[in-house]
Amino acid sequence: MSTLRDPDNLTLHTDDYEINMMATYFEKHMQNRHAVFEVFFRDMPFGNGYAVFAGLKHIIEYINHIHFTEDDINYLKSVGDYSDEFLDYLRNFKFTGTVRSAVEGDLVYNNEPIVQVEGTIAECQLVETAILNMVNYQTLIATKAARIRMIAGDDPLMEFGSRRAQEVSAALWGTRAAYIGGFNATSNVLAGKEFGIPVSGTMAHSLIESFGNDYDAFMAYAQTHKNCTFLLDTFDTIKSGVPNAIKVAKKMGNKINFEGVRIDSGDMAYLSKRVREMLDDAGFKDVKIVASNDLDEYTISSLKMQNAKIDSWGVGTKLITAFDQPALGAVYKLVSVEDEQGHMVDTIKLSNNAEKVSTPGKKQVWRITEKDDGKSEGDYITLAGEDPQEQSSLFMFHPHFTYINKTIKNFNAKPLLKDIFKDGKQVYSLPSLEETKQHAKDSLGALWPEYKRQLNPQDYPVDLSKKAWDHKMNLINQIHNGVEQKLE
Amino acid sequence: MSTLRDPDNLTLHTDDYEINMMATYFEKHMQNRHAVFEVFFRDMPFGNGYAVFAGLKHIIEYINHIHFTEDDINYLKSVGDYSDEFLDYLRNFKFTGTVRSAVEGDLVYNNEPIVQVEGTIAECQLVETAILNMVNYQTLIATKAARIRMIAGDDPLMEFGSRRAQEVSAALWGTRAAYIGGFNATSNVLAGKEFGIPVSGTMAHSLIESFGNDYDAFMAYAQTHKNCTFLLDTFDTIKSGVPNAIKVAKKMGNKINFEGVRIDSGDMAYLSKRVREMLDDAGFKDVKIVASNDLDEYTISSLKMQNAKIDSWGVGTKLITAFDQPALGAVYKLVSVEDEQGHMVDTIKLSNNAEKVSTPGKKQVWRITEKDDGKSEGDYITLAGEDPQEQSSLFMFHPHFTYINKTIKNFNAKPLLKDIFKDGKQVYSLPSLEETKQHAKDSLGALWPEYKRQLNPQDYPVDLSKKAWDHKMNLINQIHNGVEQKLE
Repeated sequence: MSTLRDPDNLTLHTDDYEINMMATYFEKHMQNRHAVFEVFFRDMPFGNGYAVFAGLKHIIEYINHIHFTEDDINYLKSVGDYSDEFLDYLRNFKFTGTVRSAVEGDLVYNNEPIVQVEGTIAECQLVETAILNMVNYQTLIATKAARIRMIAGDDPLMEFGSRRAQEVSAALWGTRAAYIGGFNATSNVLAGKEFGIPVSGTMAHSLIESFGNDYDAFMAYAQTHKNCTFLLDTFDTIKSGVPNAIKVAKKMGNKINFEGVRIDSGDMAYLSKRVREMLDDAGFKDVKIVASNDLDEYTISSLKMQNAKIDSWGVGTKLITAFDQPALGAVYKLVSVEDEQGHMVDTIKLSNNAEKVSTPGKKQVWRITEKDDGKSEGDYITLAGEDPQEQSSLFMFHPHFTYINKTIKNFNAKPLLKDIFKDGKQVYSLPSLEETKQHAKDSLGALWPEYKRQLNPQDYPVDLSKKAWDHKMNLINQIHNGVEQKLE
Repeated sequence: MSTLRDPDNLTLHTDDYEINMMATYFEKHMQNRHAVFEVFFRDMPFGNGYAVFAGLKHIIEYINHIHFTEDDINYLKSVGDYSDEFLDYLRNFKFTGTVRSAVEGDLVYNNEPIVQVEGTIAECQLVETAILNMVNYQTLIATKAARIRMIAGDDPLMEFGSRRAQEVSAALWGTRAAYIGGFNATSNVLAGKEFGIPVSGTMAHSLIESFGNDYDAFMAYAQTHKNCTFLLDTFDTIKSGVPNAIKVAKKMGNKINFEGVRIDSGDMAYLSKRVREMLDDAGFKDVKIVASNDLDEYTISSLKMQNAKIDSWGVGTKLITAFDQPALGAVYKLVSVEDEQGHMVDTIKLSNNAEKVSTPGKKQVWRITEKDDGKSEGDYITLAGEDPQEQSSLFMFHPHFTYINKTIKNFNAKPLLKDIFKDGKQVYSLPSLEETKQHAKDSLGALWPEYKRQLNPQDYPVDLSKKAWDHKMNLINQIHNGVEQKLE
């Protein structure tokens, strides 16, 4: 199955309509018209106050490998009514566009561009599906992970969800996104190898069952591994798991690091307290208690409120599938395109729903922070070319409720969208995963707590510059008039 | 990134504890002990009355490629405290096990084995994560697709969710699973190419926006494609979309197949009726109306109840992520293992929750149907070796509420688990995707409607043979006594 054999080449991992539109542009000699598309999402995932951007590494790899193989061309020929000229065009196709994007670990918000693709309309169209596919999932998981991190405090968090992930690449890229969002380790060995994430895991119930009892299984594990975390709940956590773990640890003494015990079922609050007492009484005060059983930010929060004696958390299904909201819903919209005369024309998608009306024109997002304490003031979206850094004060107003506004004087403004590809060439070097993780942590550090709370966070301001706002209003009126005129 | 470069080799796509347990088995000279593991899930997904099994193709590919590369070995050496002997063992590792499984398109139910892996305990342990990862996701999506198919009747169903799928392999394998479950086409070109699924798609809003108006865009598309489905809602479905689609279709006449129009936003019930009228009035009675906007079985059902004039459905996010329940939750449990004396010992996982107690021993599932009409009577789980085909009557009873029972006389019994690998060698040939899809359809045909309804379906009987039930009860008592004794 060559999906697996040559998946560097995800060129055909695109929607059929992209190819069909490319064909129309090509046949109409419009394929090289200049265009700008932007990615944004409309609603904050999980009702969270921020999202953690991820997915760029995969996008970079994908774009760097775009090419139509002869096999791809033959396939397209067999299913579509494409001309030989168009197929030749694909055969020689190279991505020559410019990609600007938030970088991994950046905080991003709804209704602002987080990726921008500028190039020929044909190439911009081709990459829509894969970019959305990667950004949507990875940003979702990094955000979910950050929510869990917020509740877990400094407790170690392990990603344990591979078996429940939505197929292979979700398991791998998902655990990387979780690491960016604040997790400490993964159970997935391939992700550990490929991304350099610390791996974690000791034993499953099957090990204990294959020995028939806790003692023999723990002892065998202890005789074959220096670092031991014993799984307690195969037969009976309190009656068999803990006493046998203690027995083995005492017998093995310094030959092992008795790091922890794991509880995977039952009443975690009650069991963890009993287990803690038993370990403490046996002199194992430093041994950690790991919990893993359908956890997420809600169950962890609840266990903490019950004073459960849990030191670290293995989180699976609920994280890796973003169980409570398994899709981010980012879209990819044309914001500007060259017309027949060679002029760039800004475009807008209208809707009866005010929040669904897109903001026309190529834009930049400026992250505004207070100069002295570095704390977040909000995001300020300008048309490309505007530079708030040149202004001494900034008038920021809500894009729908314009009477909600403020004027900022002592501020820093940093552009969110950075050059990733220029004219088809990668100009951005990915930082190490550790740096990316640290960047996410630092970014969260600059955010006021009001935006970070798990429930009902404040809305982070994402405002339009006056120029961008006026431009949007003008275009809405123009189109309304245009449609009316056409019908007359 | 070699995740992408050599992903045929998913050998390390496993949980770290599998490798650590393998190391313990190896160092204790137990790695070749014979073992049997079974995959099952505890709850029906979406509260549905059946699940459609999928994932086997990917599992077969995965198992056929299992091997540890020198790179893998070096990585493991760098992160674990493994002996050189163990690493050598991995270096020479071959999967030599036997895999029995339901086949794709089979209906499967909760609390019955759907995949069975038999072999050395080490190899059985290694493959747990990847098998669950593939079966969990693909079975979930095939089932979700079948639910949507049930509501859509014979309407064409297109899978449009790539951009919202949880990364690349979910988009590809997910759309294949959707096809098995009853969808007709996919938007994903790579899935079309790799799996032979019909691809579908014409234009996005960006095409229309790049032309500035519906008419020019539709005309350009019509001049460059024979089959046309025009997207109506870029500016205004009724005032601009429909009249311009009609204008272009009339102008182009026989030069195009005016197949359909698509509505992607707004009040679908209202709009589809207006669009139908307008098309009919213009003489285009055969032109189909396609809807696509966050659809699932519930919205489709609601639109049908409102007599929306929609002929075919593009379903995205809600299907490809299984939005309302994004994980199936199948587990992989040891059911039998060789002891020191070389005897097979059946194992059980106890729990305070009756439904979570596993059924010990290597098993077979028999699908029981009425001999005359071929209709489903239920599933009958036996210990391996029992053959209900030799019995003239079958006593079937509920595994928890044993007073719910029936005796069947005129029946057929067919084994659900079929040999896929024998001693490491693939012995099962995958049928074509079309055959698999047909098999799912036929399987659903044999099921009573009471099990198929969308809401509150009847529980399909999944019963244990008397022998399997007695065996389970004996083992539960043995273990309870055992734990008590150890503590005395």
